[in-house]
Amino acid sequence: MLKYELIAERIEELIENGQYEAGDKLPSVEILRSEFNVSKSTIINALKSLEKEGLIYQARGSGIYVRNPKRDGYLNLFTADGFSDDLKGHDVTSKVLKIAEIKPEEHIKTQLKLQDNETVYYVERIRYVDGKVFCIETSYFSKNVVLYMNEEIANGSIFDYVENNLKVKVGFTDIYFKIDKLSASDAGHLQLNEGDPSLEYEQIFYTSTGIPFDYSKIIFHYENSRFYIPSVK
Amino acid sequence: MLKYELIAERIEELIENGQYEAGDKLPSVEILRSEFNVSKSTIINALKSLEKEGLIYQARGSGIYVRNPKRDGYLNLFTADGFSDDLKGHDVTSKVLKIAEIKPEEHIKTQLKLQDNETVYYVERIRYVDGKVFCIETSYFSKNVVLYMNEEIANGSIFDYVENNLKVKVGFTDIYFKIDKLSASDAGHLQLNEGDPSLEYEQIFYTSTGIPFDYSKIIFHYENSRFYIPSVK
Repeated sequence: MLKYELIAERIEELIENGQYEAGDKLPSVEILRSEFNVSKSTIINALKSLEKEGLIYQARGSGIYVRNPKRDGYLNLFTADGFSDDLKGHDVTSKVLKIAEIKPEEHIKTQLKLQDNETVYYVERIRYVDGKVFCIETSYFSKNVVLYMNEEIANGSIFDYVENNLKVKVGFTDIYFKIDKLSASDAGHLQLNEGDPSLEYEQIFYTSTGIPFDYSKIIFHYENSRFYIPSVK
Repeated sequence: MLKYELIAERIEELIENGQYEAGDKLPSVEILRSEFNVSKSTIINALKSLEKEGLIYQARGSGIYVRNPKRDGYLNLFTADGFSDDLKGHDVTSKVLKIAEIKPEEHIKTQLKLQDNETVYYVERIRYVDGKVFCIETSYFSKNVVLYMNEEIANGSIFDYVENNLKVKVGFTDIYFKIDKLSASDAGHLQLNEGDPSLEYEQIFYTSTGIPFDYSKIIFHYENSRFYIPSVK
């Protein structure tokens, strides 16, 4: 864990212990810096990470404010993290339905900026949170970035594997979604009925240098998923 | 329009004209600064605003990259703006169903941090995009910030009124949402059927100094709404 992550965790504890409540103003960067005895840039990085998690808000020129406490079990769509990161404290598991190396269709090739002859890793999974069906995920991974894939990896957190083993720096992600009615086959996977509500989600992950490497379609179980977005003006 | 907004608009034009495409690297801050002949902080503010719109991505130490083009008609949930801002080029209209000054229920009072005796402006609207039903919106406005409200204001963009007339600086917003089935009465307003899919959305807006002033419940028309989130790691 980096130094700024440790500081972020300690500030998070102060908020979770109720020492600072929603709407309260936190001490200034200068005071935090001398309190924790670290550099100004460490404090600034810690505050940035807390801001992305939706724990605090930094108003230019007026201070740092505590936001509403996180709601447990909600997926934070503001940060480009994997589910496992977001649902800390919950048991995230996967069942691999299909894994293969395939030639992707045109739409996927465009999104991942692939050459005509390039193949991708195709992974189809059902994901569970605390044993309940959370979503069906169909992913296409560019082999230029995701150098290797197998069932063992796909059984765990692919996001962690990409970040920690392949040392890929994830930069940003585009999410597009809409609401629809479930098809019979998706309903079967989700243990729901055809025509039940669904959240259909398209997500493209990029490295920090702008290379798209993961195109995923995700269909969420409407009763088992909750979402949170801490936006900033 | 502020100087940085003008610069942001001109960079946006370069992207929309295809001079820079998704994945391309933009010139450095230094070069942009001398090209546009403005201060470094103007360029930095312009880039920040383009980043929030999801047009560019700034990778620390490696440069500024162009993201995928916006999809028209998608609501950007990454920025705490009103719909009208997000759906530029589309005709956003409202029909006011109810407007009143009321004593809010306990849950709303807590979210808006109100005293026991304080009343709120209650506004219930159907909102349309290009003449199609987009959502039903039920809002509670704190009178400490939203000093006045009437039907004429509620017929237009309340967000614009709050920002431009009341000079409120909007800081951040918390969005929580889930998918569900429509109730008979909501289905009636949305011209859909009971049991059809719905996106149920709770949103709390705060001023830049952390004061909550708008608690809204929004139910979207599943066929007429599309959403976009340009997240950053």
